[in-house]
Amino acid sequence: MNEKILIINGPNLGILEKRNKAVYGGLSLKTLENEIREEAKKINCDVDFFQSDIEGEIISEINKNCYDGIILNAGAYSHYSIAIRDAIEASSSIVIEVHISNIFARENFRQRSVIAPVCSGIIAGFGFYGYRLALRACVNIQRTQGEYK
Amino acid sequence: MNEKILIINGPNLGILEKRNKAVYGGLSLKTLENEIREEAKKINCDVDFFQSDIEGEIISEINKNCYDGIILNAGAYSHYSIAIRDAIEASSSIVIEVHISNIFARENFRQRSVIAPVCSGIIAGFGFYGYRLALRACVNIQRTQGEYK
Amino acid sequence: MNEKILIINGPNLGILEKRNKAVYGGLSLKTLENEIREEAKKINCDVDFFQSDIEGEIISEINKNCYDGIILNAGAYSHYSIAIRDAIEASSSIVIEVHISNIFARENFRQRSVIAPVCSGIIAGFGFYGYRLALRACVNIQRTQGEYK
Amino acid sequence: MNEKILIINGPNLGILEKRNKAVYGGLSLKTLENEIREEAKKINCDVDFFQSDIEGEIISEINKNCYDGIILNAGAYSHYSIAIRDAIEASSSIVIEVHISNIFARENFRQRSVIAPVCSGIIAGFGFYGYRLALRACVNIQRTQGEYK
Amino acid sequence: MNEKILIINGPNLGILEKRNKAVYGGLSLKTLENEIREEAKKINCDVDFFQSDIEGEIISEINKNCYDGIILNAGAYSHYSIAIRDAIEASSSIVIEVHISNIFARENFRQRSVIAPVCSGIIAGFGFYGYRLALRACVNIQRTQGEYK
Amino acid sequence: MNEKILIINGPNLGILEKRNKAVYGGLSLKTLENEIREEAKKINCDVDFFQSDIEGEIISEINKNCYDGIILNAGAYSHYSIAIRDAIEASSSIVIEVHISNIFARENFRQRSVIAPVCSGIIAGFGFYGYRLALRACVNIQRTQGEYK
Amino acid sequence: MNEKILIINGPNLGILEKRNKAVYGGLSLKTLENEIREEAKKINCDVDFFQSDIEGEIISEINKNCYDGIILNAGAYSHYSIAIRDAIEASSSIVIEVHISNIFARENFRQRSVIAPVCSGIIAGFGFYGYRLALRACVNIQRTQGEYK
Amino acid sequence: MNEKILIINGPNLGILEKRNKAVYGGLSLKTLENEIREEAKKINCDVDFFQSDIEGEIISEINKNCYDGIILNAGAYSHYSIAIRDAIEASSSIVIEVHISNIFARENFRQRSVIAPVCSGIIAGFGFYGYRLALRACVNIQRTQGEYK
Amino acid sequence: MNEKILIINGPNLGILEKRNKAVYGGLSLKTLENEIREEAKKINCDVDFFQSDIEGEIISEINKNCYDGIILNAGAYSHYSIAIRDAIEASSSIVIEVHISNIFARENFRQRSVIAPVCSGIIAGFGFYGYRLALRACVNIQRTQGEYK
Amino acid sequence: MNEKILIINGPNLGILEKRNKAVYGGLSLKTLENEIREEAKKINCDVDFFQSDIEGEIISEINKNCYDGIILNAGAYSHYSIAIRDAIEASSSIVIEVHISNIFARENFRQRSVIAPVCSGIIAGFGFYGYRLALRACVNIQRTQGEYK
Amino acid sequence: MNEKILIINGPNLGILEKRNKAVYGGLSLKTLENEIREEAKKINCDVDFFQSDIEGEIISEINKNCYDGIILNAGAYSHYSIAIRDAIEASSSIVIEVHISNIFARENFRQRSVIAPVCSGIIAGFGFYGYRLALRACVNIQRTQGEYK
Amino acid sequence: MNEKILIINGPNLGILEKRNKAVYGGLSLKTLENEIREEAKKINCDVDFFQSDIEGEIISEINKNCYDGIILNAGAYSHYSIAIRDAIEASSSIVIEVHISNIFARENFRQRSVIAPVCSGIIAGFGFYGYRLALRACVNIQRTQGEYK
Repeated sequence: MNEKILIINGPNLGILEKRNKAVYGGLSLKTLENEIREEAKKINCDVDFFQSDIEGEIISEINKNCYDGIILNAGAYSHYSIAIRDAIEASSSIVIEVHISNIFARENFRQRSVIAPVCSGIIAGFGFYGYRLALRACVNIQRTQGEYK
Repeated sequence: MNEKILIINGPNLGILEKRNKAVYGGLSLKTLENEIREEAKKINCDVDFFQSDIEGEIISEINKNCYDGIILNAGAYSHYSIAIRDAIEASSSIVIEVHISNIFARENFRQRSVIAPVCSGIIAGFGFYGYRLALRACVNIQRTQGEYK
Repeated sequence: MNEKILIINGPNLGILEKRNKAVYGGLSLKTLENEIREEAKKINCDVDFFQSDIEGEIISEINKNCYDGIILNAGAYSHYSIAIRDAIEASSSIVIEVHISNIFARENFRQRSVIAPVCSGIIAGFGFYGYRLALRACVNIQRTQGEYK
Repeated sequence: MNEKILIINGPNLGILEKRNKAVYGGLSLKTLENEIREEAKKINCDVDFFQSDIEGEIISEINKNCYDGIILNAGAYSHYSIAIRDAIEASSSIVIEVHISNIFARENFRQRSVIAPVCSGIIAGFGFYGYRLALRACVNIQRTQGEYK
Repeated sequence: MNEKILIINGPNLGILEKRNKAVYGGLSLKTLENEIREEAKKINCDVDFFQSDIEGEIISEINKNCYDGIILNAGAYSHYSIAIRDAIEASSSIVIEVHISNIFARENFRQRSVIAPVCSGIIAGFGFYGYRLALRACVNIQRTQGEYK
Repeated sequence: MNEKILIINGPNLGILEKRNKAVYGGLSLKTLENEIREEAKKINCDVDFFQSDIEGEIISEINKNCYDGIILNAGAYSHYSIAIRDAIEASSSIVIEVHISNIFARENFRQRSVIAPVCSGIIAGFGFYGYRLALRACVNIQRTQGEYK
Repeated sequence: MNEKILIINGPNLGILEKRNKAVYGGLSLKTLENEIREEAKKINCDVDFFQSDIEGEIISEINKNCYDGIILNAGAYSHYSIAIRDAIEASSSIVIEVHISNIFARENFRQRSVIAPVCSGIIAGFGFYGYRLALRACVNIQRTQGEYK
Repeated sequence: MNEKILIINGPNLGILEKRNKAVYGGLSLKTLENEIREEAKKINCDVDFFQSDIEGEIISEINKNCYDGIILNAGAYSHYSIAIRDAIEASSSIVIEVHISNIFARENFRQRSVIAPVCSGIIAGFGFYGYRLALRACVNIQRTQGEYK
Repeated sequence: MNEKILIINGPNLGILEKRNKAVYGGLSLKTLENEIREEAKKINCDVDFFQSDIEGEIISEINKNCYDGIILNAGAYSHYSIAIRDAIEASSSIVIEVHISNIFARENFRQRSVIAPVCSGIIAGFGFYGYRLALRACVNIQRTQGEYK
Repeated sequence: MNEKILIINGPNLGILEKRNKAVYGGLSLKTLENEIREEAKKINCDVDFFQSDIEGEIISEINKNCYDGIILNAGAYSHYSIAIRDAIEASSSIVIEVHISNIFARENFRQRSVIAPVCSGIIAGFGFYGYRLALRACVNIQRTQGEYK
Repeated sequence: MNEKILIINGPNLGILEKRNKAVYGGLSLKTLENEIREEAKKINCDVDFFQSDIEGEIISEINKNCYDGIILNAGAYSHYSIAIRDAIEASSSIVIEVHISNIFARENFRQRSVIAPVCSGIIAGFGFYGYRLALRACVNIQRTQGEYK
Repeated sequence: MNEKILIINGPNLGILEKRNKAVYGGLSLKTLENEIREEAKKINCDVDFFQSDIEGEIISEINKNCYDGIILNAGAYSHYSIAIRDAIEASSSIVIEVHISNIFARENFRQRSVIAPVCSGIIAGFGFYGYRLALRACVNIQRTQGEYK
């Protein structure tokens, strides 16, 4: 049976194509979602997408708690939203943090993620490709029952 | 032509099977290297391995500068070795930081990587599987010439 | 005449029954609200309820400014929402901060409340019972006109 | 059977009536103790009182360990007495921290309680009435066996 | 041709007339908007208004990116919303930060604006009049093409 | 009657035309003063100018206390001169802080002004035009008697 | 009528003659008290003495509140006893802080006095002579009714 | 001739048997003192014992200054009592700091001893046995006149 | 023979009568100097006066090094002028730091004096009277050759 | 059967006789090892010795994991080598930290040991004699199976 | 053609012979200037000298901007004068920072130079000889056009 | 007789020609050593060279202690190797710290050298030429016996 996975993109990720091209690559969220869909097919899992600029809507979405896994790019909220952190902690899904850019190579305030400690793992710096890796990672945890393999 | 990739494992990674099983999984470095070799075959790249407990030997190895990419788990040195950071910065290889555990979910001093800012990206928290993801990420960057895709 | 009191519950408090049982007790928001209603009857005050995961909606609710008192569990927002703090400061209601768990016995970042300085008082660590105490405290301040008694 | 509860008041609380009236209300410790006694009668518990300006005497008192619960206003010691913290931690009584004023609305150094993390809960900002709430909270924990209710 | 300028007012600015009169002046948002409209007429530019207590709605509004300039009073969000900062950075409009009060003369946490570094400039402490100055500044930048004049 | 306003420019502002053109615009102090004079005429106030590299001379100038308002660009002294701060605090003039560049977008040490808390307001990031805005702000405060308008 | 002044010496001041001679001068508390008595006679005031190593006893002594003035050398407690600070704040006597050595020329932790902010003034670094100055200062405040003279 | 050594145990050490067994071992102060007495006999020195919960009493005891050596477990006071530190510094006895638990493996605030810098040495983490080691260390310093051997 | 003593008053002390009356008393520097002259006569020493707002002039004055003692109120420079500190350290005069107000009861940045560690002692909080005390202290050190008495 | 114990001495301990005599005593590593051998005989355990200036070699040595106990003086590495810390944590030997000098009485950076939290205990300040105490402590833990005795 | 180089000596360097001999060597500024003149002759460059205790005069001197190079010993101003830093940054001369003593071996506050980041390089700890080295360094940069050689 | 001087180059300095050309100049270690050899001839001293990436090998080399002077570029180890610091402190050679780049103009973590406080002096920012200056400085100290000249 296919895993059901939700891809959440947070604030300012709806206008990806307008953001700093050197950092974000200049392609749109639509393109990103298509790439992810493709990868999902390859590894036999189902993906849904959710984007919101509103912290509380991301929380409510996570609270619904109806996916095997969540790939979460919380954007700038990653750096201060303890509320999203609490949502992840309360969730029974596997949650994986993804960032398009290498946040550790940017401004100081971007080098700390308050949600990382409650996620399974983190993948950052690989552009859109990072979501694909996250998808694989998520499915791998699910299929190996979290046993390291 | 196959990419040539070097996997560097730093201090205390030679005795992986003896370290905290809940964190490191209880399998040996040998097993890890076999898994990586397998993945490398699947995606058509060549891998070499290097392990050392000595900071300076890791630096010298990076300084040789004869690989397309380096997957680097610098272990505890990740948290303070500015010298390894300098080696990475001076290297022309793609360098990807990997950690078996989610370092951001552990002690405070483990939540800061001084080498992350000069790596292409970071993957942490996925056990041995993280090296496989890193391999794919490394090859992807090489094949897309660093264009986000 | 009965005091009109609003009970505001913030982010992730809508799924109380799913959160860490050792910390939150495993009962639902519904149950909590019923307990509060009961207590309100005993001490002759009227209670309304509001729950939202969205910081700005909590602010708007406080801005309406039509209650004698507010019992506020702002959840994780307590630790960084200066915006909610401003709403409390601008309000003419008595505002009492409540936490189900003893936030001072938890992670570092949970031990600081940015809203506490503008509330009348704080009650933390007594589970659902804390809301009852807050209700009594609120009514007491109202009835004694803030004179210590 | 009635619970036996000890009310401990720390340094400078013996001269309550002489302290800043805006903060402490201008009534004496005697008055406070009478109010508490009244409340105790209402909820069927027995109360004893102890006041000392000496950190070590408060510790010795807690070390005696012969009450079901302790309501503790450690005054200024709350902000630095790790020794009192240790006494609480070693005690088998329920310990509840109370402050007459809202310590979080005052000077910086008063906004940190080193004993809060080892108490069951904290009540601050409600004047003398806070002790009454604490009494109820204490009895509630005892009677519900610490189950949140 | 007239410049099109958007005035964004953030959290708690919808109830301006109820906030601390010594700090905010006691007049309503409506009055403020009227004053701005008047000034706009004088200097030949068109103004629209947007007010929201919700961080994410302010982000979405900025993301729409259809004005020559934005006058932004992000209220308390100025002090921690990296997400709004990202929205400003991704925008192609001129963005000017305004505060009614002199935030540098108030509480410590209000003396740091996380959005200031990505705005063109900041104007604070001049009450409603500050919006008028901002309007002029905005138009001046637009008309001089950012050349200092 | 015209307001008398003093424009004080601090250290290194005498060689404006030699400083980083991207930041300061490449025009001379003379040019700046002419622009200000022009604006002053428009709004019917009288301006005098004072420039000094010496902290103490700026203090003495402020101490003379014979203007309705002071527009002060204290340059680098803004970041550490508590002595100038004291002079402002002791003055009965309206004092407005101006910076040519957006100091909040520059080095860390430039993002804190120790004089801002004792000025009426701050205007930064608008080049020479900022002095004009300051002039208007100053006159506005004077003419409205500090009433927000 | 003579002012009644209490001289309080805190921890380790009972063995003054045994402490570091370079810092404390090698004379005994007795000698110090005799010097003070002499000075008191000269300026017509009455002095009493109190020495204790116990923080709480110093507090209780201050709480008695029956002197016109207190000269307080709280020794090491000066650096952390918020409890003594509270006693001073609650007292209606003039309280003057004295230190034999220049505490600002010693270890870091000795350079901060938590009681200084609630004393009338501080005198440090003048050996035994500092107590004499404090006596004069105390009497001067009393006789001029706190008017600066 | 036998050395005379005083064993001082500070706050909460009078109820050793009631404290966290995993940390303190569950045995009483009596048992500890008996073990020490035994060891003392073996190495030919005389031991006295002193326990107090009161900071000032420990100071007064050290001030008496009539032992060749002092073995001091100041409990929680180790972490903030500069007053005890001063007593040690003023003493002519050899003073050795002992802790039953490894304080460096516990909470942050327990990892700093303010008295360690003025003691001869520190022994921590060896349970009751640590006192025996301290006794030997003390006698060794005395017998070798502090010459390292 | 009379001691020769220089009284140095730093920035903003030339306009004493215009500064915050609650803090500085509302009298002029002239009045202060007269009071000091009077006291000097009483204790048989000669006084000169120097006032400057310029840090470097205060340094040059101290560098002249031709007085037995210096009473220094460096005003705001006390809080950051390491250069004045160096001048004091290089001087062979007795230097005593004086402040009219109790700087430890004011803003945070005023609670640290960088010159205190190189002065003989400090007197703060006694208004103009503090200079008189300093004069006595200075003469006492000179006459007792620095022996504590 | 005799316990097998390894004594590891870290960087700069090979030239002990050349280091600051006041701190290290002026005797050579050879002498130290002889003393330890002697003590080992007395208490019936076998000792081996290892000295290296190279962090990684110390790690590899600990990784070999073939001793009952390790006495470790990691020299300056104690203050920053998280890599050695990890080696200790992964080891099944009893590890005891020893320092010749009282590191807590020296420079700030020497007062923190990053390896202490993962050692059984720490002994510092007793010169060569500290190694003897450590030997006894190590054997005691082994023989009592870690039961406090 | 000879390079024209200005040697600037800051506060308290006019009385070099009176400062701490162990640190500054006991010789006068005159002697220093003579030594520099001699060295200048050897390497064929022209030197001028400027000394001032006044921060602003040093700034004005640098602002004149009429030398190929500047050797700057800003004394204590090095540690806080952002204003001098700005002057250096605005200058087109090569500027080299020199200190007689090794500032990094002294007090904490002397270990940070705010001007170092905008100088070509720094030379500290070599006494008067450091100025000679700086002269050579300055000429070398000028003659090699800043190419490393 | 010629002085014997050792030039130590630390981690990543073996591949100088591959490092950031703007910072390091693009020439090889060989070239650097040749330049130094040349300079040594000019000033009549003998030079040896040592390069290692391994912290411990640099320590061992310094520990050999057989040179009159050491010119040390410890590369990144300068910023954290307390172990190398200890080696320098234990050495009887003159040790001079050199850096090719101006480390104070680079990243924050590069602006602190932990070895500077125990070196004679520091020279940074002059490219290869800095080693020549260091050679001269070293010889000068040796020949003047450390007397400033």
